[in-house]
Amino acid sequence: MRIVALAGGIGGARFLRGLKDVTGPGDEITVIGNTADDIHLFGLKVCPDLDTLMYTLGGGIHEEQGWGRADETWSIKNEMKAYGVGPEWFGLGDKDFATHIVRTQMLAAGYPLSAVTEALCERWQPGVRLLPMSDDRVETHVRITDEDGTRAVHFQEYWVKLHAAVDAEAIIPVGADTAKPAPGVLEALAAADVILLPPSNPVVSIGTILAVPGIRQAVSSSSAPVVGLSGIVGGAPVRGMADRVLAAVGVEATAAAVALHYSSELLDGWLVDTTDADAVGPVEAAGIACRAVPLLMDSPAATAAMARAALELAEQVRG
Amino acid sequence: MRIVALAGGIGGARFLRGLKDVTGPGDEITVIGNTADDIHLFGLKVCPDLDTLMYTLGGGIHEEQGWGRADETWSIKNEMKAYGVGPEWFGLGDKDFATHIVRTQMLAAGYPLSAVTEALCERWQPGVRLLPMSDDRVETHVRITDEDGTRAVHFQEYWVKLHAAVDAEAIIPVGADTAKPAPGVLEALAAADVILLPPSNPVVSIGTILAVPGIRQAVSSSSAPVVGLSGIVGGAPVRGMADRVLAAVGVEATAAAVALHYSSELLDGWLVDTTDADAVGPVEAAGIACRAVPLLMDSPAATAAMARAALELAEQVRG
Repeated sequence: MRIVALAGGIGGARFLRGLKDVTGPGDEITVIGNTADDIHLFGLKVCPDLDTLMYTLGGGIHEEQGWGRADETWSIKNEMKAYGVGPEWFGLGDKDFATHIVRTQMLAAGYPLSAVTEALCERWQPGVRLLPMSDDRVETHVRITDEDGTRAVHFQEYWVKLHAAVDAEAIIPVGADTAKPAPGVLEALAAADVILLPPSNPVVSIGTILAVPGIRQAVSSSSAPVVGLSGIVGGAPVRGMADRVLAAVGVEATAAAVALHYSSELLDGWLVDTTDADAVGPVEAAGIACRAVPLLMDSPAATAAMARAALELAEQVRG
Repeated sequence: MRIVALAGGIGGARFLRGLKDVTGPGDEITVIGNTADDIHLFGLKVCPDLDTLMYTLGGGIHEEQGWGRADETWSIKNEMKAYGVGPEWFGLGDKDFATHIVRTQMLAAGYPLSAVTEALCERWQPGVRLLPMSDDRVETHVRITDEDGTRAVHFQEYWVKLHAAVDAEAIIPVGADTAKPAPGVLEALAAADVILLPPSNPVVSIGTILAVPGIRQAVSSSSAPVVGLSGIVGGAPVRGMADRVLAAVGVEATAAAVALHYSSELLDGWLVDTTDADAVGPVEAAGIACRAVPLLMDSPAATAAMARAALELAEQVRG
């Protein structure tokens, strides 16, 4: 079975690990990773979501933290502080730096991000085919108003530095309108037997992937069932601050509202957590098959069960 | 007293530490550092000699090794190996990487190397004014013939990778002919009360500094005494492989031959080691005042004594 998943960082990566657990050697998993939270730091191209996917699926992730490398060292960060060079708010460990150095060198040599990602995965062997959503630069900016006035900040600044503590007034995926899907993205979607939307952020992860012209169309016009999983459980994000960016696009932070935001044009099936069982009715009324199952990825077994439930729902809604 | 020293890496740095020990707060030391062994690695501008000077005089050097940082970590190097990305032969530790990242970022932002060096020294407080010989790119290449034929390799490749094990047929300071002295270099030489040539490599360290148009002239025309110290002791370099590159320029690896290579036009005084006392006659015959004193920097006291001897000889030859 050819499974294609759109994915952000931590939540997507963990879900995909569960998906790998319930699929076999005959299955092919292609992951279209969000690159709109990429950032240039210290002259280097940093791709947080691609790296989280690669490290998690390749066995190098810092498990508790969810991002970055296990057994990391922090010499560079300490040195940067000694030199008085910022930003201090973005944590790049020494091992992680190496990834960005290799990536930046390859990009400077003329390789597109998709080729660079493939080269990095040669080492990590994530067990999935990892594609960036686009080789073009897309960068999510967030419009905020604070004591410095109304301004747009990089998503990472909003998320990591400001902890999303100030209202997001608008989410602007700069460059998305002219970006092209990376080589293989549309082909993978066209050939998919199942398309999954993991419980990643529906606005700044899945949303930005879908904002690349051609991708939403390829998902919605696919003959494969499209099944998503709610990252909102009991009216709040399981992790992260998805409610903050959902508010910016006028969507309530509920499992049902996110499904309706994706819309029945895109989704064939939707999984909500058992605590959100009352969402099943409204979602199904909107033409989306919906099931309530446990959606907390608190163990490998629980995560695998989620992946299995998603694949089962896909079979149920299949043509 | 305004002292100006031309310097390469390890030998120059250690001598200058001795010089600092024998000078006082009323003395100003300006160091013109060799940049012809700079190399671009991993997309970063690496300045081995400037960094060795900065780390040694600023208290951050790895003492036994003579280059690189004390208490270094090697995460990036290990990661590069895991990614299969070379070169492996050049050792850049994590802390050292931070220096190159800061430097490369500042250069990319448009600052000249001299301004970058000044900024880095803000942290290191080396107690001297450290100037690169030039803000322009100069890169020493070495012509060799081996199983791959006759070719020019970067000096670092010759020195660090090939361990100077193959004959150097020519030393080519690429870019030196069109380089301009960095801001402050000619002014410092013009205002100097004493000019010192530490026991650095006479070809690829001091030689390349002197190859920048204007610098040799500024040294030789200065009214200040110019005193050098032999890095060749007993017919062999104290450290490094200076004999290999001396051969390439047709100079014998002896304390006397190096003095004559610098020439009496440049040098007013020359210190040789006590084991080379027989060099005193020939050097003095060439019009260069010469003294034999212990020239092994095997302790801070010995190094300080060398610096004191150089300053004393400068006073003796002064006009």
